[in-house]
Amino acid sequence: MYKKRYEKLQSLMQEHGYDILALNPGPSLFYLTGLSFHLSERPVVLLVPAGSSPTLILPKLEKEKLSQSQIPLQGVFFEDNPETWQNAFNQASELLQLSHKRIGYEAVRLRALEFFLLMKSAPNADFLNAESIIATLRMKKDAEELNRMQKAVEIAQNALLATLPMIKPGKSEKEIASELTAQLLRHGSDPEFPFYPIVSGGPNSANPHATPTERTLRTGDLLVIDWGASFEGYVADLTRTFAIGKIDSELQKIAEVVLRANEEGKRVAHSQIPIGEVDKATRKIITDAGYGEFFTHRTGHGLGLEGHEPPYIFSENNLLIEEGMTFTIEPGIYLPGKGGVRIEDDVVITQEGCYSLSNLSRELVML
Amino acid sequence: MYKKRYEKLQSLMQEHGYDILALNPGPSLFYLTGLSFHLSERPVVLLVPAGSSPTLILPKLEKEKLSQSQIPLQGVFFEDNPETWQNAFNQASELLQLSHKRIGYEAVRLRALEFFLLMKSAPNADFLNAESIIATLRMKKDAEELNRMQKAVEIAQNALLATLPMIKPGKSEKEIASELTAQLLRHGSDPEFPFYPIVSGGPNSANPHATPTERTLRTGDLLVIDWGASFEGYVADLTRTFAIGKIDSELQKIAEVVLRANEEGKRVAHSQIPIGEVDKATRKIITDAGYGEFFTHRTGHGLGLEGHEPPYIFSENNLLIEEGMTFTIEPGIYLPGKGGVRIEDDVVITQEGCYSLSNLSRELVML
Repeated sequence: MYKKRYEKLQSLMQEHGYDILALNPGPSLFYLTGLSFHLSERPVVLLVPAGSSPTLILPKLEKEKLSQSQIPLQGVFFEDNPETWQNAFNQASELLQLSHKRIGYEAVRLRALEFFLLMKSAPNADFLNAESIIATLRMKKDAEELNRMQKAVEIAQNALLATLPMIKPGKSEKEIASELTAQLLRHGSDPEFPFYPIVSGGPNSANPHATPTERTLRTGDLLVIDWGASFEGYVADLTRTFAIGKIDSELQKIAEVVLRANEEGKRVAHSQIPIGEVDKATRKIITDAGYGEFFTHRTGHGLGLEGHEPPYIFSENNLLIEEGMTFTIEPGIYLPGKGGVRIEDDVVITQEGCYSLSNLSRELVML
Repeated sequence: MYKKRYEKLQSLMQEHGYDILALNPGPSLFYLTGLSFHLSERPVVLLVPAGSSPTLILPKLEKEKLSQSQIPLQGVFFEDNPETWQNAFNQASELLQLSHKRIGYEAVRLRALEFFLLMKSAPNADFLNAESIIATLRMKKDAEELNRMQKAVEIAQNALLATLPMIKPGKSEKEIASELTAQLLRHGSDPEFPFYPIVSGGPNSANPHATPTERTLRTGDLLVIDWGASFEGYVADLTRTFAIGKIDSELQKIAEVVLRANEEGKRVAHSQIPIGEVDKATRKIITDAGYGEFFTHRTGHGLGLEGHEPPYIFSENNLLIEEGMTFTIEPGIYLPGKGGVRIEDDVVITQEGCYSLSNLSRELVML
């Protein structure tokens, strides 16, 4: 499996003219080597040269990692003293003859720390954003990856079901988030969650990226719970919205509109259509209902080893959907000061169309 | 408090000749503004100009954050379509006149994503590693910060005590790590742990950065638990080592040596001595006992908003210790194939010397 992935990367590098790929620890490095790291203040970088096997620059302290790699790696080590770091990078640069080369990097992963060490070790190298080849490498999931994602979704759903009984007026967002986190672990989530649950009640639910606060739930609140789980590295990312007792009729209405938009997104998503069409479809439902300006984010994002990864579902994205792609469909409406609704499913594209890995009720349940 | 921090940063910037500081979301941005972000594939960066108030570049989706900042910020926004991102950076660059300026960055935080957007928006700017001024800004903790750290340590200790009863032969490293995590939440840790617990038994304990595995504990194992907690953003990071039943006399011996090294480190740590002396002191104890080559890492690292932050405790570090600094003292001995011992305390430097925030028994307890 790892050998095949490495070969696919090699052919992508050749096709797009990269001499070297520089990867910080994270999902792509894990995908290629099976290795995970606690990323600290010490630099760690995997250098993948076109046409040969990779070199890992890492602290001497972690040299045992080399033997745990699923593909052959050579190591270049350094000591705790930061003054020894540049030397290790220079050594790797000499080994791989980095100067004047075209070096691809992962924009959301490579840190300035490694970037500047690399740049100084490789005079006149060109640094190029390699996100698109990494996206191509990882976007279409194989059966084993889909199994893990399905398992992550089941863990997430069961953990939420186990949390619901404690949700009632008087409970704070933070209390609910803590309980949900404990339930996620109890139900078998890897401890490295893709993100900590968003639990936002009342006016806070109008902020799609809220952080749980001490605010306690009151009757009449909308409650948005956006939570994830992880299973053997692969993640789930779901959102459901609840009503705390009887709610205002406009809040009821936006919940209905968002549910229709969620369903429409899943209906439209098919192999070989531009992924932007999915965003246009959910947005049309919400705009036609008069709430277009309150759907303030894109319809979704890819999902797999990361909670957010390509493909991204925004109207202008012309990327063609392919079988095996996995992403979220999560339209929302956010009325400032009043409350918000979001309904998020994790889907995979199959021959038949769009299959939702998540099946927890999407109706506005009253708690 | 935030105003004072911003003024201190301003005077450090002036003293060291930075025109602009570029901060990704993370602890320094939180320290200065009180804002936290889920850092995603979208760029977010705070630009602090010398002599005036800062500008935050962020997704339009998150514009409500501005009003939550503890210091005045102006915002520059962009849409979900990545093609709009460079434009937002160009706009900020024009506002702050970034071209030809000296721009400081945080090496372990700034991502290639933001770096390249910034670089393209600011022709002929010089990018300089600003870690040392950020370290100076944050290394000495005030009373409020120390209270939070003490609380985080108490949460961590209580969670471990609550976990001990389930630790016995037959339990896997993963099971123990999950239970400890649930106990951390139950005892009041923020859900954003500084790191997921390291639980490593038998030969795995010889790897200081092990990840919990399915391996089950056996009689005769050493068991290293290195775990953290977080309270209102501030973290604890502790390690204790246990014996599973009766252990081999050499393992017993290394546990005694490491305990002496831990005590010596705390004895030596004082205001106004070079911090490298603390590393030399613990290392001398271990080297004199014949295990020098098996103490494969530095003695410790700073602690506060991050699990690893300056100051770093390695022999060559001549930084003078000052009152209010907080760091770990965590000598260890790792015998490949046999097992390892590490004993880690979190300390603060006071007028009297070195005060340990952690006080859980350091003796080798048999479970």
